Amino acid sequence: MPSWLEVLDRRARLRAKAGLSRRLRPRDATEDLLDLAGNDYLGLSRHPEVTAAAAEALTGYGLGATGSRLVRGSTEPHHALEATLAQWLGAGRALVFSSGYLANLGAVRALVQPRTLLVSDAHNHASLIDGCRLSGAETVVTPHLDVAAVEAALAGAPGRPAVVVTESVFSVDGDLAPLAELHAVARRHGALLLVDDAHALGVLGPDGAGAVAAAGLGGASDVVVTATLSKALGGAGGVVAGPAELARHLIDTGRTFIYDTALPPAVAAGVLAATRLARTGAGLRAELAERAAAVTRRLGAAGLEVSTPTAGVVSVTAPGPETAVAWAADCRDRGVAVGCFRPPSTPDSRSRLRLTINVGLDRRDFDRALDVIVECAP
Amino acid sequence: MPSWLEVLDRRARLRAKAGLSRRLRPRDATEDLLDLAGNDYLGLSRHPEVTAAAAEALTGYGLGATGSRLVRGSTEPHHALEATLAQWLGAGRALVFSSGYLANLGAVRALVQPRTLLVSDAHNHASLIDGCRLSGAETVVTPHLDVAAVEAALAGAPGRPAVVVTESVFSVDGDLAPLAELHAVARRHGALLLVDDAHALGVLGPDGAGAVAAAGLGGASDVVVTATLSKALGGAGGVVAGPAELARHLIDTGRTFIYDTALPPAVAAGVLAATRLARTGAGLRAELAERAAAVTRRLGAAGLEVSTPTAGVVSVTAPGPETAVAWAADCRDRGVAVGCFRPPSTPDSRSRLRLTINVGLDRRDFDRALDVIVECAP
Ligand SMILES: Cc1ncc(COP(=O)(O)O)c(C=O)c1O
Ligand SMILES: Cc1ncc(COP(=O)(O)O)c(C=O)c1O
Repeated sequence: MPSWLEVLDRRARLRAKAGLSRRLRPRDATEDLLDLAGNDYLGLSRHPEVTAAAAEALTGYGLGATGSRLVRGSTEPHHALEATLAQWLGAGRALVFSSGYLANLGAVRALVQPRTLLVSDAHNHASLIDGCRLSGAETVVTPHLDVAAVEAALAGAPGRPAVVVTESVFSVDGDLAPLAELHAVARRHGALLLVDDAHALGVLGPDGAGAVAAAGLGGASDVVVTATLSKALGGAGGVVAGPAELARHLIDTGRTFIYDTALPPAVAAGVLAATRLARTGAGLRAELAERAAAVTRRLGAAGLEVSTPTAGVVSVTAPGPETAVAWAADCRDRGVAVGCFRPPSTPDSRSRLRLTINVGLDRRDFDRALDVIVECAP
Repeated sequence: MPSWLEVLDRRARLRAKAGLSRRLRPRDATEDLLDLAGNDYLGLSRHPEVTAAAAEALTGYGLGATGSRLVRGSTEPHHALEATLAQWLGAGRALVFSSGYLANLGAVRALVQPRTLLVSDAHNHASLIDGCRLSGAETVVTPHLDVAAVEAALAGAPGRPAVVVTESVFSVDGDLAPLAELHAVARRHGALLLVDDAHALGVLGPDGAGAVAAAGLGGASDVVVTATLSKALGGAGGVVAGPAELARHLIDTGRTFIYDTALPPAVAAGVLAATRLARTGAGLRAELAERAAAVTRRLGAAGLEVSTPTAGVVSVTAPGPETAVAWAADCRDRGVAVGCFRPPSTPDSRSRLRLTINVGLDRRDFDRALDVIVECAP
């Protein structure tokens, strides 16, 4: 039997051959790449009100939360943030987790009872997929955006509790789930709808309350929303928002809530400040929408296969994994950071550049970055 | 069929009846309870060097990492922290995750190949248990600290890859796994040993390098260490340390590494400063050991059933869940925060107070807190 390290090594060599090796590349605080890769859609991670709020809480509370939410980890910033998020999203209550990943694991599991059927979109984020797996519930994976398939799955399980699980704005391609239709189908079958609004919170909807709010579903008794606080809100952490009964259930039984150190108070405080800015950031959102349209125009005119963004994520097809890596590297050499997604980080076998809109960038820099992407295209 | 909210509500009422309801209680920055509940063993969360390092990175990088480690989330503080942790733990390489929970999910899964058998201690932390579940591997749960049972499980699966999964210092009772024996047994059977050193990192071992280092197993090719950065290191985040091949494997394939926003740079920077302080904190560790012994002396003399701590965690048996809650509430009313653990947060059906040593407390305050705990005992 080969040793485990030999096994790992063999697999690494196979990945390298297939162009699927990855490398961590640290950036320093003075790095001046134009950022079309991160998820800081509204540019809030560096907003002075955000960093000032975080710095103040850092002084007041120290760095870590020093315990789980139920022991020592709950601080005023956590509670203020939860109250604000609940109000913003129109939910009975919002609970903050240390990450969106753990929020999703907790939310899916909390919605599963004996005999529950989960109906999960084929492009769902890893954390939702892991949530389905960890819940132990039977899971039907439906083709991407296929409402009829969701309906068929629900119809095939009459009398069983069921949950339809989807992202709103999908993280890799940036396309939008038909939330109103999914909700109508779910409701018709007495099923719940769980929406990961990670890439829409702060970006879409009234006052940036997200795609669920935009679809008129905020506060519906059969809808649960999760999100990360690390994208438009520029921080870290996750949230589960829904009826108050759900929050109570998670507080008493949610493993990823109970057995996890709370988000650092300074991060909660910074995100709270970002939430205030996002809610009143209609101008930022208009600028984001304008830039998203500009990406499609500019790259489409250059003959590239580019998605039509529904929020801040744009996907550009690359011929293959090595070409994608080379393309991204050329952009980087010319001062532009772009995302490069290859299997297994893509929902299908295609490799692509993933561009994100960051309204924190100067508009001229943004346009220049688009030129670079076109000029470096394979 | 009752609605899902009715189901949740019914379950909540059953928990309330059994004394198992929980409540989040926010603390503010000026709260002056004596803290025997958090996991800030060395008092580093508020150390000025820690908060100053975090504040500096906050200014330099902004609040969030703005992306996953592979996209925009890797910064200089992450890399410096990883290099320092690897050196400290004697590992080939260390990878930082956004939480210990996600580090454990990633580590267990990374060690599982087809046909792997996992052998997991009955008292293991929820994140290790979830890691076993999520990996899909067959898992044998062995009685707590039972080396013979581990050996029997391994002997029962000849020719199969196997991983022995354990905490070092167990999080609720504070007892210590027999790491050297477990390693000997694992090695005899060609199995790996995965140790969650969360409560020992910074507290036990040479230069505080943890219980694995204390057992002479640092850097062993068949040992993998995980830990959270939220306890003795006073921050947040998690780490997986082991051979470099493992890190490479996690970077390329670890779902909870790839699909998760990186730890905020400011948190990484603060933890890095804490790591420096912990490594040179022999005096802090000696004081911690002295206080741990004092707890057992003082509470034992008062006739309470108290564990003999091996690090910074002490467990005191309570007659039942309601008494435990009342005891903790009385302590709180008298200015002392203690942990109160009831099912399902306990590895068995017993409720207890969980006391932690925090050398950041003034020694006289610490002794006074012990008096209060004794005086409030049921
Ligand atoms: C759709 C989606 N859900 C969940 C997550 C996980 O959130 P977090 O990074 O806070 O763990 C992400 C991104 O990381 C995401 O894109
Ligand atoms: C033994 C153990 N492992 C893992 C964790 C999880 O670490 P984190 O809180 O960073 O998610 C904890 C505590 O929270 C723990 O006590």
